[in-house]
Amino acid sequence: MRILILGGDGYCGWPTALHFSYRGHEVAIVDNFARRLWDHEIGAMTLTAIAPLSERLRSWKRLTGKSIESSIGDVTDYEFLSSVFKTFEPEAVVHFAEQRAAPYSMIDRQHAVFTQVNNVVGTLNVLFAVKEFQPDCHLVKLGTMGEYGTPNIDIEEGFIKIQHNGREDVLPFPKQPGSFYHLSKVHDSHNIAFCCKIWGVRATDLNQGVVYGTMTDEVALDQSLVNRFDYDEIFGTALNRFCVQAAISHPITVYGKGGQTRGFLDIRDTVRCVELACLHPAQPGEFRVFNQFTEQFSVLELARMVEAAGKKLGLSVTIDHLPDPRVEAEEHYYNARHTKLADLGLKPHLLSESLLDSLLNIAIEYRDRIDMSLLLPRVNWRKSRNDRKSAPALAMAATGAGTGHSAK
Amino acid sequence: MRILILGGDGYCGWPTALHFSYRGHEVAIVDNFARRLWDHEIGAMTLTAIAPLSERLRSWKRLTGKSIESSIGDVTDYEFLSSVFKTFEPEAVVHFAEQRAAPYSMIDRQHAVFTQVNNVVGTLNVLFAVKEFQPDCHLVKLGTMGEYGTPNIDIEEGFIKIQHNGREDVLPFPKQPGSFYHLSKVHDSHNIAFCCKIWGVRATDLNQGVVYGTMTDEVALDQSLVNRFDYDEIFGTALNRFCVQAAISHPITVYGKGGQTRGFLDIRDTVRCVELACLHPAQPGEFRVFNQFTEQFSVLELARMVEAAGKKLGLSVTIDHLPDPRVEAEEHYYNARHTKLADLGLKPHLLSESLLDSLLNIAIEYRDRIDMSLLLPRVNWRKSRNDRKSAPALAMAATGAGTGHSAK
Repeated sequence: MRILILGGDGYCGWPTALHFSYRGHEVAIVDNFARRLWDHEIGAMTLTAIAPLSERLRSWKRLTGKSIESSIGDVTDYEFLSSVFKTFEPEAVVHFAEQRAAPYSMIDRQHAVFTQVNNVVGTLNVLFAVKEFQPDCHLVKLGTMGEYGTPNIDIEEGFIKIQHNGREDVLPFPKQPGSFYHLSKVHDSHNIAFCCKIWGVRATDLNQGVVYGTMTDEVALDQSLVNRFDYDEIFGTALNRFCVQAAISHPITVYGKGGQTRGFLDIRDTVRCVELACLHPAQPGEFRVFNQFTEQFSVLELARMVEAAGKKLGLSVTIDHLPDPRVEAEEHYYNARHTKLADLGLKPHLLSESLLDSLLNIAIEYRDRIDMSLLLPRVNWRKSRNDRKSAPALAMAATGAGTGHSAK
Repeated sequence: MRILILGGDGYCGWPTALHFSYRGHEVAIVDNFARRLWDHEIGAMTLTAIAPLSERLRSWKRLTGKSIESSIGDVTDYEFLSSVFKTFEPEAVVHFAEQRAAPYSMIDRQHAVFTQVNNVVGTLNVLFAVKEFQPDCHLVKLGTMGEYGTPNIDIEEGFIKIQHNGREDVLPFPKQPGSFYHLSKVHDSHNIAFCCKIWGVRATDLNQGVVYGTMTDEVALDQSLVNRFDYDEIFGTALNRFCVQAAISHPITVYGKGGQTRGFLDIRDTVRCVELACLHPAQPGEFRVFNQFTEQFSVLELARMVEAAGKKLGLSVTIDHLPDPRVEAEEHYYNARHTKLADLGLKPHLLSESLLDSLLNIAIEYRDRIDMSLLLPRVNWRKSRNDRKSAPALAMAATGAGTGHSAK
């Protein structure tokens, strides 16, 4: 299958591209390196030292004999995107090419506007490109479980049957997103559903949970293929950040009570879910929604699991409850269905002690790259301007790495 | 009350500004004249010959002794919008300043992207300006009944109580918008609800039906205050267009079967609804939704009412069913609640024979300005590029006005 990976240099996109390439699919990556630019903007490098894309792709060819094409450009540039569609003629397009951090979108007005315009226009362009150049191409779009918020009823996969005043209908599940970023994904979902209806586009919206881990079978082949691992307050996902904190005996930073419950998944399941979606495409005109996660945890449960695993490794781990910088329920009902990917054959990698050990070991291996000043939240949902230049009241890393930006 | 009217030179904004000013409120208008520009872009002038804003405001001062401030600029320009907020310090901001035509948004990719970016960024800017400069200011935002689509259950006002698997919650009513324009309003609604939650903004989202008419008590004071009256396939609302067609004995153009049922209201009720919302503001942090229409009709019912009224006036009126250029259900259940504005005191102007007579008489009065080439739909939802330059197979107006663009 000819598969176009938009955002193929990123945390989820890169291992997904390798996964497909390894299995013999013809893969092309589109990326504008925005994610690498944001590293510089916020002064936070990935814990792992990732290679430039050109080097990654040369290594991949050397190691496996397989070629992955790359086109460098921005999906919000329709002329560029059109040329990629016309040249590569994708049968599936996997769309990761969005700004994906809630805190980034909440820094200030500029970041909110950028996030929504970037994500909405990029996705509109992809939809128009599919319609105009590859109408039978299957769009696999990364959404987020955060589109649903935390309703007091069970969360279904995209749609819910509602009985009301003696009548009934199956309608889109109501959305209550919790950041300008999450809102952008809700906007995307509505736009995609509409294009499926009017143009017969085939689309799968993957409402993904919080991803953890960095390693897949393909990434593990060589150091030159290493994936990003973000631990900072902006791009670091909860479990990754907790492991880094444990590795340097920094208190694990739980926001508020920690009763915030979310769906989580291993990055090995991310790549497998995307593969399953591509191998079993939506029908023409079908807008299909899969909830893409494997387990639910509260943030405090995660913290306690890291605490236990850390202690086993001889680390001194404590848990701190910080005032929640987000506006969200700190305790709530949460029960989200996630059976459609399992029905297609997903065998989940559940969060186990051994995985926690390996995550902690990665954090320990790269501990001299950790910048402690990046661990505490500086973006407050209640403020419309967050000045990230003013450091929080916190000493810099005492682990010997100074700013932590030394190349490794 | 100090009331800022964003988009105060437009079809709904202008009579709203006059209505508030007449009642002694301090009114300021913001407009960038985008709507007048689109007249030139699509080659369709308002049937009524509207005066420039500066002239309108001079007349208003002369006729009533009342001043309305104006600031010319774009709400997507935050520096401009901020300066208006800081200078005028509004207690209520009424936000009409969006691209408001579904067909315009469906012309092609550029128009879709423009509509969504313009509307979403403008509303984000208004939300940030409220938060930063006037946190107690009440935002009254024009949405649309089209956000709901046509579900097979009763439509509630913004929220619905859902019982599911033995639990229940009150959640945002599911949205199924039918154009890139309607989608932009759904995006806005989600963004506004979020800002109410995180910042305590007070907001009322007015999900307005299709507006008809052109006259309010204030507009009627003098010819120089005359309001726009659009009848073209892009900006013309259904009833206005039907009256124009009847006036020149052009068949009334019903799309498809005409079973499409929508909420409608008289423009006199638009201004009154906005007034009621401002006089009874939302609470801090409250996101309130009113369905703003007074009667439901199917498009075919409307056409038949115009046919009957036209015949009474001696016009030769016929009804044509065209292939529906939109992708929508041509027959469906529709029952939308609209009690909240009535509870606040709205006394509706229901669509009567006498109103239809007066609308038809306006169309007849201005018949030499009618351009028949603008009446047939040229924007097809099923196409991603609609070339409006190629005229439909239709003779130009036989009513003596040629292109119809002569000034009156």
